Amino acid sequence: MGGDHAPQSVVGGAALALDRFPSLSFTLFGDAAQLEPLLLDYPRLAPRCTITHTDVRVAAGDKPSTALRQAKNSSMRLALDAVQEGRAFGAVSAGNTGALMAMAKIVFKTLPGINRPAIVALMPTLKGECVMLDLGANVECGASDLFQFAVMGDAFARAVLGLEKPRIGLLNVGSEEVKGHDELKAAAQMLRCADLPLHFHGFIEGDDITKGSVDVVVTDGFTGNVALKTLEGTARMIVKYLSDAFRSSARAKAGYLLSRGAMARMKERLDPRRHNGAMFVGLNGIAIKSHGSADTYSFSNAIAVAVELAMHDINRRITDEMQHFLAAGTAAKPVVELAAAGVSESASTLSGAVVTGA
Amino acid sequence: MGGDHAPQSVVGGAALALDRFPSLSFTLFGDAAQLEPLLLDYPRLAPRCTITHTDVRVAAGDKPSTALRQAKNSSMRLALDAVQEGRAFGAVSAGNTGALMAMAKIVFKTLPGINRPAIVALMPTLKGECVMLDLGANVECGASDLFQFAVMGDAFARAVLGLEKPRIGLLNVGSEEVKGHDELKAAAQMLRCADLPLHFHGFIEGDDITKGSVDVVVTDGFTGNVALKTLEGTARMIVKYLSDAFRSSARAKAGYLLSRGAMARMKERLDPRRHNGAMFVGLNGIAIKSHGSADTYSFSNAIAVAVELAMHDINRRITDEMQHFLAAGTAAKPVVELAAAGVSESASTLSGAVVTGA
Repeated sequence: MGGDHAPQSVVGGAALALDRFPSLSFTLFGDAAQLEPLLLDYPRLAPRCTITHTDVRVAAGDKPSTALRQAKNSSMRLALDAVQEGRAFGAVSAGNTGALMAMAKIVFKTLPGINRPAIVALMPTLKGECVMLDLGANVECGASDLFQFAVMGDAFARAVLGLEKPRIGLLNVGSEEVKGHDELKAAAQMLRCADLPLHFHGFIEGDDITKGSVDVVVTDGFTGNVALKTLEGTARMIVKYLSDAFRSSARAKAGYLLSRGAMARMKERLDPRRHNGAMFVGLNGIAIKSHGSADTYSFSNAIAVAVELAMHDINRRITDEMQHFLAAGTAAKPVVELAAAGVSESASTLSGAVVTGA
Repeated sequence: MGGDHAPQSVVGGAALALDRFPSLSFTLFGDAAQLEPLLLDYPRLAPRCTITHTDVRVAAGDKPSTALRQAKNSSMRLALDAVQEGRAFGAVSAGNTGALMAMAKIVFKTLPGINRPAIVALMPTLKGECVMLDLGANVECGASDLFQFAVMGDAFARAVLGLEKPRIGLLNVGSEEVKGHDELKAAAQMLRCADLPLHFHGFIEGDDITKGSVDVVVTDGFTGNVALKTLEGTARMIVKYLSDAFRSSARAKAGYLLSRGAMARMKERLDPRRHNGAMFVGLNGIAIKSHGSADTYSFSNAIAVAVELAMHDINRRITDEMQHFLAAGTAAKPVVELAAAGVSESASTLSGAVVTGA
């Protein structure tokens, strides 16, 4: 029931997703009086759907804490409960982000070895797409958080981009080893030392995101959120400049008419609807956040992300890698070295991670 | 002598700048054997130029520490010395950024009341241009650093954009007061409380940069550098998408031919050469860094930035505002409140600022 165009976008999105993945079935949580007539328009979808009726919904403006306390029977909460209880492989919602995140944390809990969940999604690049995290869940991150984001981003890229060995980059202000703050340097050292099947590319800069220099961009939630929104804002500015240019003269207007098809394909490459579907990764369950403004096409892509992640058993992969890392004790060496180098904050965060995983 | 196209771009840039500001005169620091023949091509510029010969130059790959020790007679260092000794209003260089910054700090020293210099430059927006700082000088910043960046960005925007009262925004992951880390919240409180002729707009997000929501974007050097490079990378990606689209069919190619003039004007709006000229602001002297790849047009814009800043006496404005702020003791109240709220790091940085200014 969440998002600007719900429940139409949700039901229509499910129908599109069913075309792509014919073995899917759905449980729709929400107002049966609205959902039932909508299903009449989708005769192939209807037999694959079960409706669980509820009158309660989380509003866009609700505080996460209010939603947690007062919305235990909301469509959002019931969908998460269904995943937790094994009745669904994943939950997809276009509703209130903060509430969805808070509820998912409470319902799913974090995976063993993971300190904090992160928001991960796909970004457009010159070469196709890359995975980026954290996009805003954690404003401040220690070295072990960044390390865990790398493990989680690696698993996400394998599942959603189908890559054998994704290249992982740590976002920094320069590619040299001496650049950046202590947490970043410590995280880089952990990634270099860890006995994991990870391809750590090293530090990257802001322009490497769209250049496609790596498959996974790892950063803290503050920087990741600013970079994501800067990218979106820049794309909107240039599309506006382009539209102004095509309107600037009769010749340009004629030029637009001729190149309209090509321009439409260009806009499609940039279309944020193609990259819809952010995951709260690091939790013991799949919860996918769709843009609130999603239409049916956009929502179907968020469902597709959930399907890919479930099919590739992303959370088992993350758990296995973290267990392997913690059991191998590869953390011990960097901790000592970093502490000796005065990186005490990172070292203490790191010890915390080891304790959590034990 | 610095940059990819020096000294041609420097001499040609000076000639263009002289067309724009006819009262300018220049001292060129570098190899007289190269500079003298170049000046023959610019008969109007030649009588406005003095050459100070030196064989020494800072190479692009030199470490700042090496440049500081070994390049005291370099073209870069001599240009800064000329500003320090009052023989020039500002120095402009397309050379090694790290070396220029290190030398400028040593030669100029920081302004009274300022802890750390920052890198400031113009960015393109939907409405024109905005000022953004810090673009990479300070990877970690406390509340008082961010506050000082706001004062410096305000002075820069008044000088270069000619604004009466620039709107100042603090870059964050949300516009609500509760968002972001402690340093940001403390900086916002200082900006709200300070008895200064500043227009503090509040928190902004990454997409507000290009939206033109404010005239001055204030952030730490890590986030600022990532945002700047993400913006540049996104612009390059979309221009490449556009070029691919125009090549994708015969119709699109014909469309391009018709709209070529309009496209050229669009690219001009995005042209980084228009925004060339970053200042190391917070130092007691004007040092402007041009892009290393600058051509004559681009370099002339970096000179123009130096001229605007000198004409508007930017450093006196910054000093006056900081003196006024420190004398008014407006800092005292936020310090106590923030300390009580547990923002001890910010509070201690803040006290540091007060001591520096006293």
